[in-house]
This record gives sequence, C-alpha cells and structure tokens, in this order.
Amino acid sequence: MVTINDGAGGLEMGALIDKMRRKLKVKGGFSGVLDDGAYVKMGDKFVVFTTDSFTVEPVFFRGGDIGKLAVCGTINDLCVMGAKPIGISLALVIEEGFSDDDLWKILESVNRVCEKVNVPVVTGDTKVLSRGEVKGIVVNVSGVGVCDKVIPNHGLEAGDKIVVSGSIGDHGAAILSSRFGYESSLVSDCAPVYEAVDACRGYIKACKDPTRGGLSACLNDMALKSKVGIVVDDDKVPVKKEVSAICDILGIDVFEIACEGRIVFGVRGCDADDVVGILRKLDCDACVIGEVVRGEKVVLRTAVGEKFMSMPSGENVVRIC
Amino acid sequence: MVTINDGAGGLEMGALIDKMRRKLKVKGGFSGVLDDGAYVKMGDKFVVFTTDSFTVEPVFFRGGDIGKLAVCGTINDLCVMGAKPIGISLALVIEEGFSDDDLWKILESVNRVCEKVNVPVVTGDTKVLSRGEVKGIVVNVSGVGVCDKVIPNHGLEAGDKIVVSGSIGDHGAAILSSRFGYESSLVSDCAPVYEAVDACRGYIKACKDPTRGGLSACLNDMALKSKVGIVVDDDKVPVKKEVSAICDILGIDVFEIACEGRIVFGVRGCDADDVVGILRKLDCDACVIGEVVRGEKVVLRTAVGEKFMSMPSGENVVRIC
Repeated sequence: MVTINDGAGGLEMGALIDKMRRKLKVKGGFSGVLDDGAYVKMGDKFVVFTTDSFTVEPVFFRGGDIGKLAVCGTINDLCVMGAKPIGISLALVIEEGFSDDDLWKILESVNRVCEKVNVPVVTGDTKVLSRGEVKGIVVNVSGVGVCDKVIPNHGLEAGDKIVVSGSIGDHGAAILSSRFGYESSLVSDCAPVYEAVDACRGYIKACKDPTRGGLSACLNDMALKSKVGIVVDDDKVPVKKEVSAICDILGIDVFEIACEGRIVFGVRGCDADDVVGILRKLDCDACVIGEVVRGEKVVLRTAVGEKFMSMPSGENVVRIC
Repeated sequence: MVTINDGAGGLEMGALIDKMRRKLKVKGGFSGVLDDGAYVKMGDKFVVFTTDSFTVEPVFFRGGDIGKLAVCGTINDLCVMGAKPIGISLALVIEEGFSDDDLWKILESVNRVCEKVNVPVVTGDTKVLSRGEVKGIVVNVSGVGVCDKVIPNHGLEAGDKIVVSGSIGDHGAAILSSRFGYESSLVSDCAPVYEAVDACRGYIKACKDPTRGGLSACLNDMALKSKVGIVVDDDKVPVKKEVSAICDILGIDVFEIACEGRIVFGVRGCDADDVVGILRKLDCDACVIGEVVRGEKVVLRTAVGEKFMSMPSGENVVRIC
C-alpha cells in the first residue's frame, strides 16, 4: 500500500524510486538520471530535462502560490544542473468548480516568473476532474534547459566547503503558517535561482536545491553520491527566528523542511569566501555552513556536541510543494 | 468557475487555452506551441518537447492501463511531430493507500512500452496525497524527441487526401465498456505510432493523432490551421461494430471519442494509395477517408446527405485519457 511517507522526499521515497528504477529497464541516451535533471549532448550543448508535480496546500501562501512555486521548482532543477532554462511545459489538473479568479491569479504568477527569467511556456495540457477526484489544482511543470557544462550534485572532496545561498526553511514555515493561520510576517523563499548559480558557475564543484526533505535530505544526498562526510556548524546555518519558532511549535526539524529558492553549493575551501562575496552582491544572505570531510555521515556540530543529521524518514509536512 | 467542459478537448478548452496563452507573455525560442509538441533547433536537429497528464478511469481497462496510456499518449505527440522520442519523464500523484500491486502493474506497463520503442524514463517525481485529495493516480509524462524535419499539423491544400491508420474510437469505447461493465471483446487501440509515422515520413504533409475530441476535433484543428475544408465519407471511416454499438447505447458521437494509437495523415492525392499500402504492410487497417477542399468546414458525406462535422462542444466522456 502506498503511504504518505513514500512521497516525502526522505528514506522511504528513495527506496520507492530505487524499486521503480529497477522495473524500468530501458537505459541510455541521457545521463544524470538520479540528479535534479537528466542531460544529453546535442550538437555542442547539453540539453537538460526535468519534471515536477506540485500539490501545495494552501494554493496561495505568503510569498507565492502554486503557479510561482511550480515554475520556480522546475526551472531551479535545471539551474542547479548548470543549465539555462529555455522552455517549460504547464500541465494542469483542476477540480471542477475551481474559481476562475484563482486560476487567473495562478497564471499571472506563472507569467511573472517566466518574465523574470525570460522562459516561455511552450507546451501544455489541461484536465478537469469532478469534485472528489482531485482537490483544488495539481500543477506539473517539466522543463528543458541548455548548458555548455553540466554541474553535478556530487563530486565533493574532503576540504571542500559547503555554502548556502540564504536562510533555511522559509518556504516550509511560510506554508505552515499560512495553513494554520499563524500571525507571521514570514514569506516563502520561493524564487528562481538562475542568477545566483550563473554568477558562481566557475567555482561550483557540486550543487543542489534543498527542497523536499530540506537541508538534511540535500546534504545527505550530496554526501552519499560523493562518498564523503559533511560537518555542518549549527550556529552558522542561517535560520530566521520566526522559522525556528514555527518549527518549535510544531515539533518539526527546521533542517528537514523545504526551501524553494535556495541553493547548497560545494566549492573548494579556498573559493568559499569568494562565492559568499559574489552571492552577497546579489542580495543573497549566503554563508559557509560546513565542510566536507572523509567519511560517510552528515554531522551537525552544536554548542553541546555533535549529532548525526540523517536522511529524513517519514513525512513531517504534507503538500508542501 | 472551471467546468468539466474546459478540459474536454473541444471548443471550451480551445477558448481556455487561448485565454491562457494571452496571459503568458514570454514567447520565443520554440515554434509549434499550439501543435502536438513545441520544437527548437539544436545543432543540426530539431528537439521536440511535449507534455500530457493522464487521469483515466478505470485505471486498468481492456487493452491497457494508465501507465501504457501515459507513455503512448506522450510519445505519440512527439511521433506525430515527426520526432523520434529519446527520453520521457514520469511524474506520479498517488492517493495514499493505493495498492502496491496496482502501482507495480502500472510501472510494468510503462516499461513494456518503453522497451517496445526503446525510450528510457530519464527523470521523475512522486507525490502522495491523502485520501480525498486525489482519486487513484494521476500520471504526467513529458517527453523529448529529435528529428531532422518537423511534421506540422497544418499545411493541407485542396486536393490532398485524408488517411487514417486504423479504426476510430476503440480507446474511448473500450474505456466506457470497462467502466460500465459491458460484456465486450473490444480493446483500446492504445499503442505507440512511431513505426507508422516513420514508414510514411516521405509522404506526410500534415499529421495529428485523434485523442480527446476524437476524429472531429482532430480534423477541425487541421482544417482550421490549414485554412481549408475537409470532406469525409462516412462509409469509408473504419469503425468497429462494437464501437458503434456502445456509442449508440450511450448516445455518443463515435467521431468525438478518443483514439490513443491512431494517426490522421494529410497526403497529396497522388500519394494516398501508396501511404495506405505502406500502413497495411504494418498491419494497420488504414483507409482513405476523405479529401481536402477549398472552404473552412469539415463536412461528413453520408448516404442521406451532408452534415457538418463540428469541433466538439461540451464533455461527452470524462477521464478518458
């Protein structure tokens, strides 16, 4: 029986995806199948291809809505592969009776992000289901991007530093505060990251965006694929006070909730300060949060000692993205 | 308020898509945005990109299931553009509690079609929603293909002939007979069409697959975009007796229900018999069903006179694909 945990971005989803991949026997053509996007050489460029379905609840939240989220989510998966997005698809599954006004607000959000990054919607699909068959709206955005060189999510080596491009957990906390009606000034970090990746391109050894499963899932994935350990300094990770407070109230680990406009970079130790400098010029609240070490665990160094920062298991927050 | 008709593949969906396209201001890069797929030049090839979300009910039907349907549906959109599919995405939105066995049966179907056409699943996404938030499973498949020359869905001229690659309405009728528990030997025509398109490539002026909205929507779309009329001979369109019978019982126009493994070709009048011959060698029950004329209407010529074969309006069958 499929459980909520199977879609949560943690251990159980990893196991399900492994099992699915064993069922699907046709391989070849594309590389990077377990990265944020798959890529294939075409002429003198790499073409990168990725997909994501979005089911966020509420559909409108502080700092965005499902339209903005869907476009940012998918183009960011292209961006962290080093690709410039050149076209996206937009496939809507809508509940009968969904408000016209809300639909057009969502489309306006899609358009705003597309204008910001100059990426057209080039193909689409629209299905309408009866009440009870889908709640609200589900949005799939797939995307195609191009680059001269792909940036992987692995290849970290001992001595490298880990840089985050801004504060952690804002998206998850904003969704939760919208969902539960908390009074809060918190907004989602949902935003395109192309500019930041592009500006640091020459320095990046590996990068990934910490979405479902948050910083913990992201770092564990990068460490596992790179066959290294990572030590994170708890006090260096930028976390907004309100985000901490919401996570404390709900008993959620702030390192396990989604960001939708942040990047985790792995860079050479000697380049870390330069990368932080470049990102800060772009108004990113970037920080060096840790370093890559020999080993295979992600460890959080806190004021009272060290603990493992494990791959999340189970679902802490549903319909977050 | 969004209505079921807005997703039905007919007039109302056309109006909604037009309105959406006006909201989305970023254009450029890709051509063929209102064709079955969008395409862009990359090196010496065209890269074609398309998307479709599938919501069929029941998930398992005679001749296929949502997995087979989703892969065929999307790769066929690439094929009718003249492209060879090179990679697809698979994004699942699954209801909590969905049967593991059913999920693996669906994945096996996906794999079988992928093996048949030698196309890998290269990127994916899995979301699980609580009961009441989605019914069963929604599958999005996007796809990327390549070709040297794109085949459009327009460009028909008076004197051209219309060829269909096989009997009409089998998929829709099979879904309905599964849904209502009719005793029937009818199976969906759901199948990949690459081989048929590739074999006729040199002859094809325009082609399209008659999915949602059936043959009527397909011919109206091709006629409208080509600025021509089409005359179809009722007695030449291959329709199985059981398909006619099911449509009669349900009061549905057989020309308005979906096929999922058929193609409508527009070819020069002098090439029509050759194309039929090629298709018949591939075991397709191909026929010349009509001709392109000056004008702007699609007309059905029957034993008792002529009538318009209009773009469908309203929804005859929900969750058909």
